[in-house]
Amino acid sequence: MIEIAKLGHVALVTPDVEGSLTFWRDIVGLDEVDRDGDTVFLRSWGDFEHHSLSLAPGGEARVDHVAWRTKRPEHVEQFADGRDDVRWIEPGEEKGQGRAVRFESPQGHSFELYYEMEKAPRSARLKSNSARAWSHGVSPRRIDHVNLVSDDPAQTCSWLGETLGFEMRELISMNDGSMLGGWMGTTNLLHDIAVMRDERAARFHHVAYYLDNAQDVLRAADILQEHALLVDAGPGRHGISQAIFLYVKDPASGHRLELFSGGYLVFEPDWEPVVWHEDELALGMTWWGPDLAGAHEMATTTSF
Amino acid sequence: MIEIAKLGHVALVTPDVEGSLTFWRDIVGLDEVDRDGDTVFLRSWGDFEHHSLSLAPGGEARVDHVAWRTKRPEHVEQFADGRDDVRWIEPGEEKGQGRAVRFESPQGHSFELYYEMEKAPRSARLKSNSARAWSHGVSPRRIDHVNLVSDDPAQTCSWLGETLGFEMRELISMNDGSMLGGWMGTTNLLHDIAVMRDERAARFHHVAYYLDNAQDVLRAADILQEHALLVDAGPGRHGISQAIFLYVKDPASGHRLELFSGGYLVFEPDWEPVVWHEDELALGMTWWGPDLAGAHEMATTTSF
Amino acid sequence: MIEIAKLGHVALVTPDVEGSLTFWRDIVGLDEVDRDGDTVFLRSWGDFEHHSLSLAPGGEARVDHVAWRTKRPEHVEQFADGRDDVRWIEPGEEKGQGRAVRFESPQGHSFELYYEMEKAPRSARLKSNSARAWSHGVSPRRIDHVNLVSDDPAQTCSWLGETLGFEMRELISMNDGSMLGGWMGTTNLLHDIAVMRDERAARFHHVAYYLDNAQDVLRAADILQEHALLVDAGPGRHGISQAIFLYVKDPASGHRLELFSGGYLVFEPDWEPVVWHEDELALGMTWWGPDLAGAHEMATTTSF
Amino acid sequence: MIEIAKLGHVALVTPDVEGSLTFWRDIVGLDEVDRDGDTVFLRSWGDFEHHSLSLAPGGEARVDHVAWRTKRPEHVEQFADGRDDVRWIEPGEEKGQGRAVRFESPQGHSFELYYEMEKAPRSARLKSNSARAWSHGVSPRRIDHVNLVSDDPAQTCSWLGETLGFEMRELISMNDGSMLGGWMGTTNLLHDIAVMRDERAARFHHVAYYLDNAQDVLRAADILQEHALLVDAGPGRHGISQAIFLYVKDPASGHRLELFSGGYLVFEPDWEPVVWHEDELALGMTWWGPDLAGAHEMATTTSF
Repeated sequence: MIEIAKLGHVALVTPDVEGSLTFWRDIVGLDEVDRDGDTVFLRSWGDFEHHSLSLAPGGEARVDHVAWRTKRPEHVEQFADGRDDVRWIEPGEEKGQGRAVRFESPQGHSFELYYEMEKAPRSARLKSNSARAWSHGVSPRRIDHVNLVSDDPAQTCSWLGETLGFEMRELISMNDGSMLGGWMGTTNLLHDIAVMRDERAARFHHVAYYLDNAQDVLRAADILQEHALLVDAGPGRHGISQAIFLYVKDPASGHRLELFSGGYLVFEPDWEPVVWHEDELALGMTWWGPDLAGAHEMATTTSF
Repeated sequence: MIEIAKLGHVALVTPDVEGSLTFWRDIVGLDEVDRDGDTVFLRSWGDFEHHSLSLAPGGEARVDHVAWRTKRPEHVEQFADGRDDVRWIEPGEEKGQGRAVRFESPQGHSFELYYEMEKAPRSARLKSNSARAWSHGVSPRRIDHVNLVSDDPAQTCSWLGETLGFEMRELISMNDGSMLGGWMGTTNLLHDIAVMRDERAARFHHVAYYLDNAQDVLRAADILQEHALLVDAGPGRHGISQAIFLYVKDPASGHRLELFSGGYLVFEPDWEPVVWHEDELALGMTWWGPDLAGAHEMATTTSF
Repeated sequence: MIEIAKLGHVALVTPDVEGSLTFWRDIVGLDEVDRDGDTVFLRSWGDFEHHSLSLAPGGEARVDHVAWRTKRPEHVEQFADGRDDVRWIEPGEEKGQGRAVRFESPQGHSFELYYEMEKAPRSARLKSNSARAWSHGVSPRRIDHVNLVSDDPAQTCSWLGETLGFEMRELISMNDGSMLGGWMGTTNLLHDIAVMRDERAARFHHVAYYLDNAQDVLRAADILQEHALLVDAGPGRHGISQAIFLYVKDPASGHRLELFSGGYLVFEPDWEPVVWHEDELALGMTWWGPDLAGAHEMATTTSF
Repeated sequence: MIEIAKLGHVALVTPDVEGSLTFWRDIVGLDEVDRDGDTVFLRSWGDFEHHSLSLAPGGEARVDHVAWRTKRPEHVEQFADGRDDVRWIEPGEEKGQGRAVRFESPQGHSFELYYEMEKAPRSARLKSNSARAWSHGVSPRRIDHVNLVSDDPAQTCSWLGETLGFEMRELISMNDGSMLGGWMGTTNLLHDIAVMRDERAARFHHVAYYLDNAQDVLRAADILQEHALLVDAGPGRHGISQAIFLYVKDPASGHRLELFSGGYLVFEPDWEPVVWHEDELALGMTWWGPDLAGAHEMATTTSF
């Protein structure tokens, strides 16, 4: 079976690229690193590939694809073999990237698998970084994970496990036996992907970028509030993942960002998922901080 | 080839178990979780196994072994197959642990491979933790890595790569072409093990425990200084690994602890080691903070 | 006119002294420093007097008095001169304290003025502190301010200014011209006392203790949640005062504590109060974090 | 006797105004708020007056004056009355400022007393601030204190006490009975001014700017090191004042900046100075962190 090395990037479509750049580049503080026609490529100073986010123009906001890097070059071809539901992306079709495949989850989330990607230069004085930290805006270190919405999280999670090798790390189990949400990983991160339930089939809740310290998330809240950006919810600490969080939406597109710090890592190969029962739901979502279940703004999602 | 899932534990021998307990349990804040005769087992609130540190009585301070958990149960046997330089450790010989093998690096560092280990209960209110955070002392989250001293780090590192699958992440290259030190990992941590050069063959520099925030390391410095414990060096930030660090020695044994936060993670399967040349050595050791090369106290090590 | 040097202490009455000690001493981490009969005296490691909090037994929770230290010894007598609404407290009547006077605000808040008070020893290794920091619990540095409830904050604030020399630093002005709340100081702290409106005449909203870093408040939230203590609201940042806050109630008495960090200081002798208008109320209360106006638990107060 | 309300500003002369602006404005992150000919005025987002720092061109780096705001308008005239060693500065001679007097300490440090100063607008969304926090560079909150060098700190401190009302808060007492340094305040800050001994009569060691959190000082160290600015010493924590510190020099002028966080406040009117004896000197200078006595770079000073 193929193995996933990491979340690579998220390709967003926005009705207002310049407006979205104000948010992701100027306020969040990602670096604009390349353009291809009207599509803009960005990454953080601790991202090691050509891009971790792209902004392409489109009539309405949607996620074009969520891309995963495989552990070996041959995994991309291996994955495509014998499947007729994948589409090949040729080298350079997405700037910086080699041959890749696109495909959909049963619920319609669009994914991409790739191995070849142009490396970011190591251009900071702190030579393991691709650029100077703290040059502008919030300045997170790197992309962390994605959170998707599905009308059947149990099915989406099973598919993620069987098809891509994700393992369940934490989940919410309802009294009727159904799964409200699952947090899955293939790396040592508590999760690389989460799936939460909503009546709509394939939606996008957020992409998360990581900051080294909880204090960096508090500083982000200060910066966002000076720009009068509605903070959806946070800062707070999740019970699930234990991470410090803050949610904010790009006002030009509605795509949501989670600024994220401090979640724990999983090294155990025989990890038993942490199960939060329905009556523990509130604590699982929020160890301390805002009631996420009650946050109206948190219910909005963008489409695939 | 076998795969290593994680650093499991470090088994320390100390001439003064009670004195060492004052340090590791009362001041560092690990939880004492079990005893077997005069040997005491400890772990942090975010360690998920029976123990991550043990303190056994002995005439002089030394490291009995550094233990690695394999990714699969069969890896332990697989590793031992055909080798005549391993010693079997029977189940229960080390409390909480199943069948394991012990063996030495070419320089004489004693390692252990195991898979079976009693799991820590999830007994905190924050249910993914094995115990309450912040109950006493410094209260780090979990064990992180070990740092060893070798008279031939290049050879030790090659052996670690060929035998146990560690990959080079960062290294210091001297003008004469030799390697002064290597930082290697099998997980997404920048390093699970480091090897630095010294004239003595097999020595132990430190075991590191992780804290979520740089501020937690500063708080640790306050606590240690209130106990009049000589802080070897730090707080500071390494160039290599980018981590916030602080070094302190158990006064009863001389074994050194690094309190560690914020190092970056490596997800790239084709990671190219970051090379620090001799003239960048100082910056590699210390991005900001104390001059580690000049810190006399940092040169002391304990034996295997 | 007399001058106030500082908030000295808050004398609380609790129906359950031992229960309240579990909260204030064991969880919040104040040091128990003395007893007088059933009354217990506590202070933080950065408080410089005999006590900053006392817990006395009583049928129901109430505030016995809020005590202010004068700048000069003669101010106590000067204040009492010609007033027939003060009551003298003889030396030792309150342990550690010299001669003092007690009196009430027009709304019935009970205050004390004193100058003579036994000094705390400087017993920490960090010799400006009265005790070791971080020895147990949340471990705040020192008492900071009090927040009172009044049915007429404008009148209470005028009285505080005319009688005790407090200056208005920030206030909330409603559309009908009334003042919803005032934040007043005599020190460089943004405020030593706040008065907020409620239909009941003389109530106590909270006493605040200060922590050096926002991260220390986040750590406090972790500790409180491990003890299943309902966090009333927070962490968050106030607009007014700019401080990081977290509210929690002593479950044994209902008296509320604010853990507080980072508010700005006022050095200007001609400070013009920052006025928050009714439509800015939410932002004034919460720069980021929980909606305090909407927090039901925040409305509860204890009596004088 | 007159009273000092606060440290107002420091007027620096630099041989390279543009080079100094790169440091103080672009890297430290002060806002350039005004110019008067070749003189540039700067302040932080939490400074409430026209400027807290000025940079004027000159043949060599020196401090033109250190300015203190009086508590009352009449204090300026009162101070000048009957003294023939003061020089009047007319309104507008220093931009934004009313009538002021200049004079020297017995050792030749040049001071200014003023009351009238143009107020900074409150132009941030967080309305108590004069500008947006975190807009660029390190972004400290406000000016904090100055540290001067004198060949006779005892005499300088006596003069500061008798002439300007500063009170001794902490001091270093040598075995021969002399005072190596004194930390004095008129506000609740542990110190507004410090005086340390050196063979040269009137020198300037540093001006300090305050940051709310220790983590902000660590972030500053990252920013400074990315700009290859030699960090003189730090981060660390002083024993004296308990503050987190980091020292760095403007490379264009040699004037030193201390980035400072978390020092304790003094509210006691009968504060007894904390005395550090010669054998406690190292701990007084450095609770944890670099050996300041041994830091060669720390010995350099600029002239008045």
